[in-house]
Amino acid sequence: MKIKAVDPFYLRMPNITTAADGTQDTLLVRVRTDTGLEGWGECDASPLVSMAVYCCPMSHGNIIDIRTSLIGETLDSPDDVLRLSEKVLRNGLDIQQIQHAYSGAEIALWDIIGKKLDKPVYCLLAELSGTSDVAHPKLPYASVLFGDTPEATYHIASGLREQGYRAAKFGWGPMGKFDAANDIALVRAAREGMGTDAQIMIDAGVVWGVDYETAYQRAEAFAQFSPTWLEEPLAPDAIEAYGALTQKDPSVPIAAGEGSNTYRMAEDIIVHGGVAFVQIDAGRIGGIMPSFQVRQLAEQHGIQYVNHTFKSHLSLASSLHVFATNRDFDLLEYPAAGSELSQCLVTEPFPVESDGMVRVKELPGLGVDIDTEAIRPYLAPVRIEVGGDTVFEQTLL
Amino acid sequence: MKIKAVDPFYLRMPNITTAADGTQDTLLVRVRTDTGLEGWGECDASPLVSMAVYCCPMSHGNIIDIRTSLIGETLDSPDDVLRLSEKVLRNGLDIQQIQHAYSGAEIALWDIIGKKLDKPVYCLLAELSGTSDVAHPKLPYASVLFGDTPEATYHIASGLREQGYRAAKFGWGPMGKFDAANDIALVRAAREGMGTDAQIMIDAGVVWGVDYETAYQRAEAFAQFSPTWLEEPLAPDAIEAYGALTQKDPSVPIAAGEGSNTYRMAEDIIVHGGVAFVQIDAGRIGGIMPSFQVRQLAEQHGIQYVNHTFKSHLSLASSLHVFATNRDFDLLEYPAAGSELSQCLVTEPFPVESDGMVRVKELPGLGVDIDTEAIRPYLAPVRIEVGGDTVFEQTLL
Repeated sequence: MKIKAVDPFYLRMPNITTAADGTQDTLLVRVRTDTGLEGWGECDASPLVSMAVYCCPMSHGNIIDIRTSLIGETLDSPDDVLRLSEKVLRNGLDIQQIQHAYSGAEIALWDIIGKKLDKPVYCLLAELSGTSDVAHPKLPYASVLFGDTPEATYHIASGLREQGYRAAKFGWGPMGKFDAANDIALVRAAREGMGTDAQIMIDAGVVWGVDYETAYQRAEAFAQFSPTWLEEPLAPDAIEAYGALTQKDPSVPIAAGEGSNTYRMAEDIIVHGGVAFVQIDAGRIGGIMPSFQVRQLAEQHGIQYVNHTFKSHLSLASSLHVFATNRDFDLLEYPAAGSELSQCLVTEPFPVESDGMVRVKELPGLGVDIDTEAIRPYLAPVRIEVGGDTVFEQTLL
Repeated sequence: MKIKAVDPFYLRMPNITTAADGTQDTLLVRVRTDTGLEGWGECDASPLVSMAVYCCPMSHGNIIDIRTSLIGETLDSPDDVLRLSEKVLRNGLDIQQIQHAYSGAEIALWDIIGKKLDKPVYCLLAELSGTSDVAHPKLPYASVLFGDTPEATYHIASGLREQGYRAAKFGWGPMGKFDAANDIALVRAAREGMGTDAQIMIDAGVVWGVDYETAYQRAEAFAQFSPTWLEEPLAPDAIEAYGALTQKDPSVPIAAGEGSNTYRMAEDIIVHGGVAFVQIDAGRIGGIMPSFQVRQLAEQHGIQYVNHTFKSHLSLASSLHVFATNRDFDLLEYPAAGSELSQCLVTEPFPVESDGMVRVKELPGLGVDIDTEAIRPYLAPVRIEVGGDTVFEQTLL
């Protein structure tokens, strides 16, 4: 079959705030073939900047837009997805945003191939890599922001506990913005609210920059509350500082990697940053295959792969297929407090099942359907003119 | 003074081809203050994608556009430039294209501060870093594409020799696309055309991907023609492969780095890739200061810093200020075959002086003026609407 259309859609809530809440808007990418198949993917990136990568005029042979690279191409097998990804990235060699933008299309291509071959994407990945095709359940951790105070954090945590969550990650907000005592009080509140049996994770939201000494001191201070990890204490690019921090062997393991815009960035933070958990967003790193390659690298290094997902359950689906077949990679970031937009985006979200676990869907492709009626009110039409020509105009949903 | 306006301009030739010629279009950024000062910078990046970073609607606290971060801000000193850069990058943490886009504005901010303080930018950098403020001349190497055949390459090379060039770099085109014999014939032709006294450099244009064995074999085969370096034999992200290649200690030194979109990427290719020459484009890596920091890292590692410049002499100016004061970093990439647009962009291009050298201008700021009349015919007006609002409309030049 041939790729007939590649359409990015910009969706957003009516009011966007500076809160570290990635569900306030999104970029969906729909790919259609001449046989009537349709696949969807979601990017975790600036919608407008990424859209420009789908339509930017050619600058030379290393700056060619994604639509031009894909439309009219043959798409019949997983090998075609790999070939097209190579083409898109080669044509976009000098477009820095290429991975952020292409993620949505790459995920949509896997969705289509799974539907065509009547197999879940994780089975296609297992076949390609010659590895197990048995999927394992994941323990979902609610991913929420810290409250503004320890008290507010306690209420959020106890609310999650009442909802049945056995694990939760608290992040950003006031963490690192005041003093050590406040940071410690926030973690104490999270632990007390969740109870002693639960897993808690702490996300420092890159707040200490390159200051690995402070990050180390906080890790030691937080150890009394037994968090599973301390996440992103440092800036995404501060790999030498991550290396210095992990060399000190802090009592709480270090997690990072959501800022990996390329496979190399993930490799760099694993090999030179020494993290114990690598967190990959398939909607940023260029889609499912580069995420799967990081998973394989994590297996080689004996560290744990975790998804980064702060969008809708479409993103959750693409994340899950990447590491469903590794039993030891048992934690799943599960957005628990997203916008209405993110909550209505797929027709059947992934439930937390009666055993407290989340499972990949045994359905063709990604296994989720987009609720186009529900999301239509959130569509922000985009029109881009360059030199008098319309180079992009939003297709109706 | 306060920043009053930040205006990106998309300029392009009437016909754009897939040739690896970065001068076919460009993105200029003009910054104006409330005191009437004006600075300019040039990006080497997709103009439309980068423009979107100047106007994209906020997604959350980590996706805020460059204009919002800069307009209304105080700009009185070099420290203000550093502070504003930190703010822009922090606000754009989740915009992958942020460095490509911001480069032009950062360069413009230095231009303004130099004009305000009546000093060339290289002197401001010397003061900030406590290093020598004596500028040294550079040997320009013409940067051209290989001809389609060895014969065509010979004619290009002998033409450059007749123009007086004592050094020239030949790149892309047929290199690596056919067999070893053709690759060797191309290098032989470049050497014969330039003569035995000249320096020649070979740019393989990332053609061997991760195949460092082939890259090593070519380096050994090219050694008989004594090129100064073999540039970008591998993909920009293939740092482990670069490390494997340089571990084999090839007879021709390896150069790379133009694909460094961030300081970390440059640090990575120096520390883990083991290159002997690091090539930095100030119009990609985020501007003058991150380039200067890479220069300092190169000094610490005992390797040579070289500019990557394939745009106009505005880019050449910003490149030169970065490493003018290091006598040992004596080579300058000097675009010798650019488009009409790139050649008319500044009123007084950098001449190759009677001693065959190029010197930084002892003038305030970058030391070049934009020929707005000459470039006006190349302006491609841009208009971007999101959700019915015009978020960007090209200001007239």
